[in-house]
Amino acid sequence: MFASLELHYKKSFLLFPRIINCTMEKSRLEAFSDGVFAIVITLLILDIRFPEVDYSQFAATLTSVLPRILAYVMSFIIIGLYWVIHHNSMHVMKKTDRGFLWLNILFLLCVSFIPFPTSLVGRYPFEAGPIMIYGATLIACNAVGYVMVVYVHYHRHLAMAEFGDKYLRSHTPVYIIINGAYLGAILLARPFPLVSYIIYIAVVVMIIFFLPNVDDGINYQAKE
Amino acid sequence: MFASLELHYKKSFLLFPRIINCTMEKSRLEAFSDGVFAIVITLLILDIRFPEVDYSQFAATLTSVLPRILAYVMSFIIIGLYWVIHHNSMHVMKKTDRGFLWLNILFLLCVSFIPFPTSLVGRYPFEAGPIMIYGATLIACNAVGYVMVVYVHYHRHLAMAEFGDKYLRSHTPVYIIINGAYLGAILLARPFPLVSYIIYIAVVVMIIFFLPNVDDGINYQAKE
Amino acid sequence: MFASLELHYKKSFLLFPRIINCTMEKSRLEAFSDGVFAIVITLLILDIRFPEVDYSQFAATLTSVLPRILAYVMSFIIIGLYWVIHHNSMHVMKKTDRGFLWLNILFLLCVSFIPFPTSLVGRYPFEAGPIMIYGATLIACNAVGYVMVVYVHYHRHLAMAEFGDKYLRSHTPVYIIINGAYLGAILLARPFPLVSYIIYIAVVVMIIFFLPNVDDGINYQAKE
Amino acid sequence: MFASLELHYKKSFLLFPRIINCTMEKSRLEAFSDGVFAIVITLLILDIRFPEVDYSQFAATLTSVLPRILAYVMSFIIIGLYWVIHHNSMHVMKKTDRGFLWLNILFLLCVSFIPFPTSLVGRYPFEAGPIMIYGATLIACNAVGYVMVVYVHYHRHLAMAEFGDKYLRSHTPVYIIINGAYLGAILLARPFPLVSYIIYIAVVVMIIFFLPNVDDGINYQAKE
Repeated sequence: MFASLELHYKKSFLLFPRIINCTMEKSRLEAFSDGVFAIVITLLILDIRFPEVDYSQFAATLTSVLPRILAYVMSFIIIGLYWVIHHNSMHVMKKTDRGFLWLNILFLLCVSFIPFPTSLVGRYPFEAGPIMIYGATLIACNAVGYVMVVYVHYHRHLAMAEFGDKYLRSHTPVYIIINGAYLGAILLARPFPLVSYIIYIAVVVMIIFFLPNVDDGINYQAKE
Repeated sequence: MFASLELHYKKSFLLFPRIINCTMEKSRLEAFSDGVFAIVITLLILDIRFPEVDYSQFAATLTSVLPRILAYVMSFIIIGLYWVIHHNSMHVMKKTDRGFLWLNILFLLCVSFIPFPTSLVGRYPFEAGPIMIYGATLIACNAVGYVMVVYVHYHRHLAMAEFGDKYLRSHTPVYIIINGAYLGAILLARPFPLVSYIIYIAVVVMIIFFLPNVDDGINYQAKE
Repeated sequence: MFASLELHYKKSFLLFPRIINCTMEKSRLEAFSDGVFAIVITLLILDIRFPEVDYSQFAATLTSVLPRILAYVMSFIIIGLYWVIHHNSMHVMKKTDRGFLWLNILFLLCVSFIPFPTSLVGRYPFEAGPIMIYGATLIACNAVGYVMVVYVHYHRHLAMAEFGDKYLRSHTPVYIIINGAYLGAILLARPFPLVSYIIYIAVVVMIIFFLPNVDDGINYQAKE
Repeated sequence: MFASLELHYKKSFLLFPRIINCTMEKSRLEAFSDGVFAIVITLLILDIRFPEVDYSQFAATLTSVLPRILAYVMSFIIIGLYWVIHHNSMHVMKKTDRGFLWLNILFLLCVSFIPFPTSLVGRYPFEAGPIMIYGATLIACNAVGYVMVVYVHYHRHLAMAEFGDKYLRSHTPVYIIINGAYLGAILLARPFPLVSYIIYIAVVVMIIFFLPNVDDGINYQAKE
């Protein structure tokens, strides 16, 4: 039934298929993604709820809330990093198609999930389960991100000329190293929970500080 | 009283009516709608709350939360689909008027309501009531969407030339099929709740994967 | 102390004052306001929480939640209306200054408050208190909106040429009628709560449907 | 290991480093920041929750919620002020680099944290702890803001010509005075909690009303 409809559409050329396909410009995809990133990063604060206690227990309760504050800081920076990477990745894109669009929605689905494991590690900071779920969520984000790179590799007409053959090849080891580190963090969560956190933070710090800075004074010019 | 005011306005031509009418450009309507979509899709995560339990019950509680996670995934993708369809639909619009504007607000009202039935199916996953409310919400979204198409059909000056006479005629069966499927899911919710979920998911998968892809390399060009 | 700093600034001409003053373009003010409107309107759904009950009480609980759903619909449409009015009002603005900027923030403060009385009327639908607070909030929104019109009247260089002398004069009765109606709703809240709701809804319907539509095919043109 | 990768990147010149570095334009940084500001300012309302009480206790409960409403108003205006200052500060920027980008994310992290101390002062309005945490959060925001000014001072190529040598020098006393005032508020929180609030509000009022207004009719022109 749908097949015949489809045929009809292919002939008529002016409707639902067009509705689904024709006009998701790159800029709107970016704007929507930016919106989701901004909201996810800001919703994190909602998990830091102070229990309804008498003020005499204020200091003790604040101490018990401290892990949630630290989890807030960690996830804020990690989501901020995903935003930066997402944004810069979009720069090599020339066009977008339906497949890429849905991979992007899947990526946002994973990133939007981060507040949940953040809430868990904030509540049970030294238990293995939450740390493992946190790591698994990050691996899922990275995996979808990697599939997006692979997708563009095989749909080269979507990308700018800069996106050469080496792009995928040079990115693959980075994804393997990062996800390998996260996998290690998951495996170490039970015996050494603190080591897992150090790994999560170290990966972020590494990416922010140690990946080379090739600013050449051109790329960052303001577009007012 | 209002009538005389109205008359006065019609004569003076420079005020409240203008305030209400003159300047809702299509681009701002899109930007506002994008914002609402991005927020609704991200708010879904807030419903996945982990109850305050001792860690010894972590695994059991996580299992009990699993339906909410699945409901999150389902609604995320459905709202993502509405966003894609809404966006592409706007592409055939040239202008917008007050009627269309308010139909759009009504459409956003329905989409913004989705987190509520999502919360219900996440909590009572195999009960008929939540599944029926979920389906009814989707039918409401589609119905308002269809009214928007009809509205444009009868206010052709709002649309681009592509929006020909066939547009409404060819869309009608698609809306009937989809809403018919949802209605079936509602009716089957009591005897076969699982079938209802399969229908909800099948419709989405069908739209995403099986409606023909007429990308021609022109429509998706980046507008940087 | 501040005074001397101020003097220093006035002389040096290149700093904090500039930071505060120079570059709030109208477009950014609109974008920020749009964001706040989109968020407030979407947050409304968060108040419709289904209590944690056994499914056997589903129907009864759903009935008890119904007033919150109706309050959601009412506030969604009212905030949507404020968004439309705000947007169109900005159309007569040419520039913006610090005073207008802060009046706008005050206006957003009032609109952002609407979820609170919405929550109250949803919970105690036929009690006078919540209905009165709801009306008072709307009056506050309108009052700030009216002050903005007065401000522009006395700072005519901020406005387009369309904003003539008659603008304020012709708006004043509209504001008086609407706020008078709301005041009536507040006074009637105790004896006739239902009448108060009818007034709230009637005002919205009146503005949406009965204020004249002066679309002339020019103003709504798309700006792609 | 990362070092060798880095070398490889430096040679190949077409990948991950580019992804991290090349294209965060000033405009996107502003849009993302605007989004975060709009969301934080609107989320404040979520803290004003009316406890589930019988209506007979409505007035008493409303009184107990009043401090939260006042805290909402105070934080709304303070975040609004940060938004205005952030926005105007961006006006002297020409480009942005990775360091500035991450300082900005750190700044947003601090601002996004404000709902938490707001919730505390709303709940324990006359206790020292919440007032001190509130002040410390504002000092953290200002400190990061000041570091951003210092950063631009030492990376002058990022700034417009207006950002002369005097910029940092003239801003420093303002930051010292404001943070000194906040520090005073923290120290006075235990003996005189009311004085602390007066200081918080006085600083905001001072900045809004008493810093000189150098509008010259050019800077605020609309860019439609």
